[in-house]
Amino acid sequence: MPVPQPNLYPPFNIVRLSHVEFGVTDLAKSRAFYVDTLGLQVTDETADTIYLRAMEERGHHCIVLRKCDRPEARDLGFKVFDDGDLDKAAHFFKGKDLPVEWVERPYQGRTFRTRDPMGIPLEFYTKMDRLPPIHQKYALYRGVKPLRIDHFNCFSPDVDASVAFYNELGFRVTEYTQDEESGRLWAAWTHRKGGVHDIAFTNGRGPRLHHTAFWVPTPLNIIDLLDLMATTGWVSNIERGPGRHGISNAFFLYILDPDGHRIEIYCSDYQTVDPDLEPIKWDLKDPQRQTLWGAPAPKSWFEHGSLFAGTAVSDSQLKAQPIIAP
Amino acid sequence: MPVPQPNLYPPFNIVRLSHVEFGVTDLAKSRAFYVDTLGLQVTDETADTIYLRAMEERGHHCIVLRKCDRPEARDLGFKVFDDGDLDKAAHFFKGKDLPVEWVERPYQGRTFRTRDPMGIPLEFYTKMDRLPPIHQKYALYRGVKPLRIDHFNCFSPDVDASVAFYNELGFRVTEYTQDEESGRLWAAWTHRKGGVHDIAFTNGRGPRLHHTAFWVPTPLNIIDLLDLMATTGWVSNIERGPGRHGISNAFFLYILDPDGHRIEIYCSDYQTVDPDLEPIKWDLKDPQRQTLWGAPAPKSWFEHGSLFAGTAVSDSQLKAQPIIAP
Amino acid sequence: MPVPQPNLYPPFNIVRLSHVEFGVTDLAKSRAFYVDTLGLQVTDETADTIYLRAMEERGHHCIVLRKCDRPEARDLGFKVFDDGDLDKAAHFFKGKDLPVEWVERPYQGRTFRTRDPMGIPLEFYTKMDRLPPIHQKYALYRGVKPLRIDHFNCFSPDVDASVAFYNELGFRVTEYTQDEESGRLWAAWTHRKGGVHDIAFTNGRGPRLHHTAFWVPTPLNIIDLLDLMATTGWVSNIERGPGRHGISNAFFLYILDPDGHRIEIYCSDYQTVDPDLEPIKWDLKDPQRQTLWGAPAPKSWFEHGSLFAGTAVSDSQLKAQPIIAP
Amino acid sequence: MPVPQPNLYPPFNIVRLSHVEFGVTDLAKSRAFYVDTLGLQVTDETADTIYLRAMEERGHHCIVLRKCDRPEARDLGFKVFDDGDLDKAAHFFKGKDLPVEWVERPYQGRTFRTRDPMGIPLEFYTKMDRLPPIHQKYALYRGVKPLRIDHFNCFSPDVDASVAFYNELGFRVTEYTQDEESGRLWAAWTHRKGGVHDIAFTNGRGPRLHHTAFWVPTPLNIIDLLDLMATTGWVSNIERGPGRHGISNAFFLYILDPDGHRIEIYCSDYQTVDPDLEPIKWDLKDPQRQTLWGAPAPKSWFEHGSLFAGTAVSDSQLKAQPIIAP
Ligand SMILES: [Ca+2]
Ligand SMILES: [Fe+2]
Ligand SMILES: [Fe+2]
Ligand SMILES: [Fe+2]
Ligand SMILES: [Fe+2]
Repeated sequence: MPVPQPNLYPPFNIVRLSHVEFGVTDLAKSRAFYVDTLGLQVTDETADTIYLRAMEERGHHCIVLRKCDRPEARDLGFKVFDDGDLDKAAHFFKGKDLPVEWVERPYQGRTFRTRDPMGIPLEFYTKMDRLPPIHQKYALYRGVKPLRIDHFNCFSPDVDASVAFYNELGFRVTEYTQDEESGRLWAAWTHRKGGVHDIAFTNGRGPRLHHTAFWVPTPLNIIDLLDLMATTGWVSNIERGPGRHGISNAFFLYILDPDGHRIEIYCSDYQTVDPDLEPIKWDLKDPQRQTLWGAPAPKSWFEHGSLFAGTAVSDSQLKAQPIIAP
Repeated sequence: MPVPQPNLYPPFNIVRLSHVEFGVTDLAKSRAFYVDTLGLQVTDETADTIYLRAMEERGHHCIVLRKCDRPEARDLGFKVFDDGDLDKAAHFFKGKDLPVEWVERPYQGRTFRTRDPMGIPLEFYTKMDRLPPIHQKYALYRGVKPLRIDHFNCFSPDVDASVAFYNELGFRVTEYTQDEESGRLWAAWTHRKGGVHDIAFTNGRGPRLHHTAFWVPTPLNIIDLLDLMATTGWVSNIERGPGRHGISNAFFLYILDPDGHRIEIYCSDYQTVDPDLEPIKWDLKDPQRQTLWGAPAPKSWFEHGSLFAGTAVSDSQLKAQPIIAP
Repeated sequence: MPVPQPNLYPPFNIVRLSHVEFGVTDLAKSRAFYVDTLGLQVTDETADTIYLRAMEERGHHCIVLRKCDRPEARDLGFKVFDDGDLDKAAHFFKGKDLPVEWVERPYQGRTFRTRDPMGIPLEFYTKMDRLPPIHQKYALYRGVKPLRIDHFNCFSPDVDASVAFYNELGFRVTEYTQDEESGRLWAAWTHRKGGVHDIAFTNGRGPRLHHTAFWVPTPLNIIDLLDLMATTGWVSNIERGPGRHGISNAFFLYILDPDGHRIEIYCSDYQTVDPDLEPIKWDLKDPQRQTLWGAPAPKSWFEHGSLFAGTAVSDSQLKAQPIIAP
Repeated sequence: MPVPQPNLYPPFNIVRLSHVEFGVTDLAKSRAFYVDTLGLQVTDETADTIYLRAMEERGHHCIVLRKCDRPEARDLGFKVFDDGDLDKAAHFFKGKDLPVEWVERPYQGRTFRTRDPMGIPLEFYTKMDRLPPIHQKYALYRGVKPLRIDHFNCFSPDVDASVAFYNELGFRVTEYTQDEESGRLWAAWTHRKGGVHDIAFTNGRGPRLHHTAFWVPTPLNIIDLLDLMATTGWVSNIERGPGRHGISNAFFLYILDPDGHRIEIYCSDYQTVDPDLEPIKWDLKDPQRQTLWGAPAPKSWFEHGSLFAGTAVSDSQLKAQPIIAP
């Protein structure tokens, strides 16, 4: 098995993925997508920035949209358990010769930026402003009724290396895809918060952000979103789905925002809190890996991703390919 | 508009589509598909025949599976309102020089066979044995929880001609697809019972049976069926879907039985009882016609169908083609 | 069996129930209920009147709200098949010495008012203005996503007599409740359009309108409405449910509008187009008759109803009572 | 606020609730309830014991049914993170002068029994036999499609004291009900695994087990279970629901097993992993606390519970009462 043993005693305690900032070229159009169509709630808004949260979140933001000249993904944000963990985290990254920069982030307490060894920009914090609950303000629910941010998925040119690094941080592998010929990882799903993943890695030119996922109550909410997008001018932003993933067993839909940032709508994976949870292995050649029901993903799904700001990309070493829709 | 005015005062009163017999090559395999997987209920069973009904039906059968050497579709069955209608129907078909043969059909009262002008074999009856209701015997529900047979869809080499004939029988067009260049019908949906259709016609080599549809309660039942088929050896029998049709607005899934007879699982179309219901027109080039969410149908969907027993087929005159999945 | 044989050849052809007008005391409050909460669409609006349709309806209105001094229900509207049927209907009612008055109704063609033998005000028409379809304008869906008006339910002081009259009009009984001791009908459900009912009668002081029902896609829409009403000031307008009826097998919720007009939200009954459909009999003492899951209806459900404008009421003769919630 | 500050650095790491054993008087009848009706999977079965797991669980058992002379609840089982935590836990309970007994439990590794200060029997372990995943074996799904055990709820004669103790163990309060007059806790929900609760406490004669809850995918599964129970002889075992809890926002149903052990079917609460999650306070007098939609709970719900084996009970000190259904 190419998956490392889980590190059950990591150097610091990451609670969960938290947020991401997207550079977007047309703020009004992005607002129409994220607010009017998906149904995220605006928590702050200025001439060039919109802060958003999902319906059950009490932290101030899970998505930050910032006007810029070209689309890009910025820091992937993670919440750590306490201030001690934050300092230990900074120490850890410095010890790996990775850049640690303490930054000011509106609505967040002490926050530092760094990068993983592939170059993915990350930020860590302990405290974010807390807002009153709105999960029972049913009049506010719109669109797909997004409940919370669920995970990031990144293209990595070396999935084995990415998994090794995040495993050291305490991310535990729940499922993975192996290339039988080379014995290497083609993809892996790793979690901190007790679901199938907080962050996943897929073989490909990278590092790039493949998608950011939101959790919704039931598959019917996803069908509602499809009906809404199909009849309000967003039909060409529907990329893949709906379907059931073999991996994670989740019901999914992939859509593209106006700048091509890919969003997954996701529900019904499973609980993974047991430290002795055995990772599930999939063969890259298994067509039910991608979609349990057999439909292959389109070509764009393997090729398109968001560039991270200021990050060089390289091709992946592993050339193996899963089945692509003709 | 190429659609004829509805004939609101037809020569006899057809209540609804009723049943169809499939010639199947392996009765045990077909039983595994229709009974164990779809969840239809067996109402009678012999060495070479299985009679099936859906959960809210009280008529004895909606599908008859009969062992034979090669797959074929047999008579499309329709229920007429009363015995007088049955005699008027026989008279009508004779008057069109179409063959009328009174036949013995187990569990049915007086029944005659005929063919429509394209050669599609039809049978008409007034009375079928009635069985006690089982729609509240929830322990019997299985698979996709099929509630009732909903419609037939046939390839026709001349959809204009097919629609003209069924229109004369009182079938009313609810939606249709027109080829803008030739002004001809490419497809049409026609009903008697107050839903979007009892029988529809699609341009193509024919006459052949394109599919037979069952009504289910909600899209979640369709998702359940996909999960079940995908994990019990039927994954390659999933042909298209799930999705929302532009036409009919219904949620759909197309699957193939072990002999390639195509079954649609279908829910949530709309009520059409008003005699002044205006047909909805779609352009053949509109990609949302097939699937509201934009995904084109696969090639097989335009090419594959069941031959009707003893019926010659011919190519369609209209060569226009909708978008096909690459 | 106390249910009369169905009259399969009625004197004129009623297509379906169509609409009802409610006298309401606060138009703005009623608008908040029917438009903002239920999600009906406004098709016309003046200082004292609001016309509403549901999402799949193309007729101009299913509910008319009219400002008045005290709450009342007005004519129950029915659509007949053609103009000949309309004249035959007028002739029929006159022949029964029932009042026939040709009236002007905005957005309707020739329309006459009459009363049934109990005094329920009725109106019949053939043509109502038709509006463009909106069932695929998903951005308009709100609240419970009401698709169409489904049925009326009326208190009758003599259900046997009510059923006998509507049976003569061609309404066919699908299910009924009998008082075993007296052998009399306690309630009955009768249809024209092919569902479980267009109009039902319940034993009680009357005639009064018990409720008006709307069809919705799935039980989850009903749960959404409950969540919305519970958190937007309407919690005390939730009267009964959600639950599954034994009778009709439908999933239901009963709510009260600001004037106490009772609305049912309803889904998943069954198709009844067969002329030989056998009515299903229920015993008044069967607790699963009301709610398959066993929960009795509250007292208000047996007592409260809307008065019809200008109609005297009398107590019912049949004193038998089903189980009432303590 | 009567809720203690969360203990974010507890003496040992409890991962989640794990399992419970029920003493049942008729094993066949209990099997019919838990296996044939709820849909739990048998993992081992002897003449007097049945081990059960839910569909996404890989641990050997979440419910153990053991034949005995009278119904009773036995140890509430919890999984701790590692062997060191198990020893620290034993040490902790000993330090509180609570009984610690190392016991043999089939399919579990080292396990000790103890009691909380109220007398609730508890057991702790690190390792339980792991079984292959079955969450994608969709042919095995039955009944309510139970995915995992979710929580225990116990009557406590002193909720303040219960909460204080479990808070010390690291259970974090997510929501609570306060009696405004006395300032005391009437109920509280506390978690370890990141949902609204692993264990909750309700004011009442105790300690007794109020209910054990299972997580299911959607409200429609709960409706399916109601339909199934209502038509297979279990209608009188339906106690309360379906409904939406104000507290936890979950969709719920309460049913009773053949011995009166109460089972909750539960879905759609929210994620609580943030260490700074603010508990939500409810007023005991708020009728939407119990059911967001306003329906009060029945009397039995406040009175009936399972006795714990060998445990004396006492009346609660706090006499305040929420609204009870008349
Ligand atoms: Ca720790
Ligand atoms: Fe994902
Ligand atoms: Fe179809
Ligand atoms: Fe009703
Ligand atoms: Fe609970």
